[in-house]
Amino acid sequence: MSTPSPLLLDRSRDGVLVITLSRPERLNAVDAALTEELHDVLNDLMRDTQTRVVVLTGAGRGFCAGMDIQSGDPGGDTGEGRAQRLYRGIARGGEVTARLREIPQPVIAALHGPVAGMGVSWALACDLRVADPTTRFVVPFLDLGLSGGDCGLSWLLPRLAGAAPAAEILYRARRLSADEARGLGLLTEITEAGGDLAGALALADELLARSPYGLRHTKELLNLALDAPGLRQQLALEARTQALAFFTEDLVEGMSATLEKRRPEFKNR
Amino acid sequence: MSTPSPLLLDRSRDGVLVITLSRPERLNAVDAALTEELHDVLNDLMRDTQTRVVVLTGAGRGFCAGMDIQSGDPGGDTGEGRAQRLYRGIARGGEVTARLREIPQPVIAALHGPVAGMGVSWALACDLRVADPTTRFVVPFLDLGLSGGDCGLSWLLPRLAGAAPAAEILYRARRLSADEARGLGLLTEITEAGGDLAGALALADELLARSPYGLRHTKELLNLALDAPGLRQQLALEARTQALAFFTEDLVEGMSATLEKRRPEFKNR
Amino acid sequence: MSTPSPLLLDRSRDGVLVITLSRPERLNAVDAALTEELHDVLNDLMRDTQTRVVVLTGAGRGFCAGMDIQSGDPGGDTGEGRAQRLYRGIARGGEVTARLREIPQPVIAALHGPVAGMGVSWALACDLRVADPTTRFVVPFLDLGLSGGDCGLSWLLPRLAGAAPAAEILYRARRLSADEARGLGLLTEITEAGGDLAGALALADELLARSPYGLRHTKELLNLALDAPGLRQQLALEARTQALAFFTEDLVEGMSATLEKRRPEFKNR
Repeated sequence: MSTPSPLLLDRSRDGVLVITLSRPERLNAVDAALTEELHDVLNDLMRDTQTRVVVLTGAGRGFCAGMDIQSGDPGGDTGEGRAQRLYRGIARGGEVTARLREIPQPVIAALHGPVAGMGVSWALACDLRVADPTTRFVVPFLDLGLSGGDCGLSWLLPRLAGAAPAAEILYRARRLSADEARGLGLLTEITEAGGDLAGALALADELLARSPYGLRHTKELLNLALDAPGLRQQLALEARTQALAFFTEDLVEGMSATLEKRRPEFKNR
Repeated sequence: MSTPSPLLLDRSRDGVLVITLSRPERLNAVDAALTEELHDVLNDLMRDTQTRVVVLTGAGRGFCAGMDIQSGDPGGDTGEGRAQRLYRGIARGGEVTARLREIPQPVIAALHGPVAGMGVSWALACDLRVADPTTRFVVPFLDLGLSGGDCGLSWLLPRLAGAAPAAEILYRARRLSADEARGLGLLTEITEAGGDLAGALALADELLARSPYGLRHTKELLNLALDAPGLRQQLALEARTQALAFFTEDLVEGMSATLEKRRPEFKNR
Repeated sequence: MSTPSPLLLDRSRDGVLVITLSRPERLNAVDAALTEELHDVLNDLMRDTQTRVVVLTGAGRGFCAGMDIQSGDPGGDTGEGRAQRLYRGIARGGEVTARLREIPQPVIAALHGPVAGMGVSWALACDLRVADPTTRFVVPFLDLGLSGGDCGLSWLLPRLAGAAPAAEILYRARRLSADEARGLGLLTEITEAGGDLAGALALADELLARSPYGLRHTKELLNLALDAPGLRQQLALEARTQALAFFTEDLVEGMSATLEKRRPEFKNR
């Protein structure tokens, strides 16, 4: 009787949470249940001290088909009017974009097949993206009667691909292959076919070997830097963050390991 | 007896306005008459519901030679002192840059031959740029005794070409060929020689086939995103824009056409 | 008895100041004495009307090994507690980053060998970078237990290399060869081995031949543009700067030289 969860959570690797969008029969299209469950997971990650890297992927043959406009109600059955429900569905999807950047863990997207609509925003909100060759980014908004400003896309795409390519991609509703996305600087790595999750997990392992303090503060500082009113504000943030690191036990280990030319063993202390 | 207009306006294609800078004997150098006439046209476009795409090009063998410093008075014969008139000429030219971004219609620059000085700022203020192989960008400010901060150039060039290339180009007063400009991400397309206007019109036709609502709001949101204080402000703008789209007739057409795998016929309703 | 100065200053070329970080036995690692002496030099440059271009390089086989954490006290022997001294050392190093951008002279970094830690921030704070093939950028923060937000790095790297590559470089503690740095747009030129200083001086000579007014105001406007709240604020700054240039003697020389197709001889008047 119970509805299968639209998210699969895998914590089998120490320090890693793999979140899988799991509505494969709908190409992982996003409905209210999926969005709200994802918010619950992201909210928990805000205070989760065990998870150090997050991987976000999609079940089946694609990453995410975007907002599930056809099947029912993107905002959920809330008893509100249609305008309110539509606004809720769109706005809550956009808040996932913000939240992916606000959680302290770097997020690696493992991409394959279609990455469409809201799925593009979520993929671009991740810190790093690993894709297999079947990946294609699809932004059909202007063919649907919608705006290309969707769930953070008009803010993220110019910052990641450049202002002029972003305009062209949105106006022309262009599809981007993995190679084209790589050429625009959107992808960290293209794996063999079907290898995106393995590639993302290998990258996660690499990050796990690094300083937990460094990892979370670097993520936070990179995000703050994008909106910093100026360099001096960022310098003030950075200096306090860096000074605090000198009072961690891991700094001693990191310095020792470097002098001894061995890999450090960090304990997040 | 009448002075020929420094601008040619062609509305022969439905939904497209082609603006041609037309002082070909001066390589379309910009004087006060041209600037003010261009402001009139851009002001009209702010409330123009028929024009959905603008093409900006130059008559004769180049796009624009920049501000017409030699021939008389860049600020116009206003009875003000020289400082006031110079300031007026420069500032009103710069306001064209801002206005090209503020009008709701995407603007496609059709470029050939010299694109110099103020002409570079205007070309970079357009949303998309189509250029033929004779195009060269010329920023001779530092050889003239002027600053490279001209009509928005110090703001646009780092955002389009990157901060480090922008500094080098301005300090060295570099000329950029069409290929070099393309390599920096400044051009959408390089056409055959003499083909820039035809290429821009073909691109305009492509954009006209897309959602009018999507087109104008994507332009506005992309511009707002560049100066947004942060992602969450942009998300709030986007969600309201997107929700409103669901109450347009064109959305039904766009969704139907996509399901039926045909091109949509949008009516801007 | 006297300690050798950690900075060498060479003013043998008219209009150029070459600053050499000079602790070659420590790969020019930065201690409090070096930082404070560099602040003195940069403070003087704020009011220096003779120096028009600055070159920053390192003595010996590398540019800079970063903050000298091992040898004593990055903040200097100030009688403060450890937290205060560490904070001082980091913050004063970060202020060098800001100051390199605030001085009116363009700064060209001449890079070779290791460019590490704080040295990366200082190199990226320069306006232009010339590197020889031995150059490698090293950001080992996350292997040391530190954050990648260091002395402006989390602000500069996304603006120069793009947001996605910046995240990958910092998270993975990647080393960048000269070719990789060039591919990311970080370098103006790669010279032959050992040729970085000669290349930087040749570039300095090229800049010296250009308008002094243009040079200093272009630098200031490019920096202001990165943090401008919007295009219209930058237009207001640019128009006043450009109008003032018309009342300099050098503008007449620049215009005449251009008409006569000869190189101008600017006098900074």
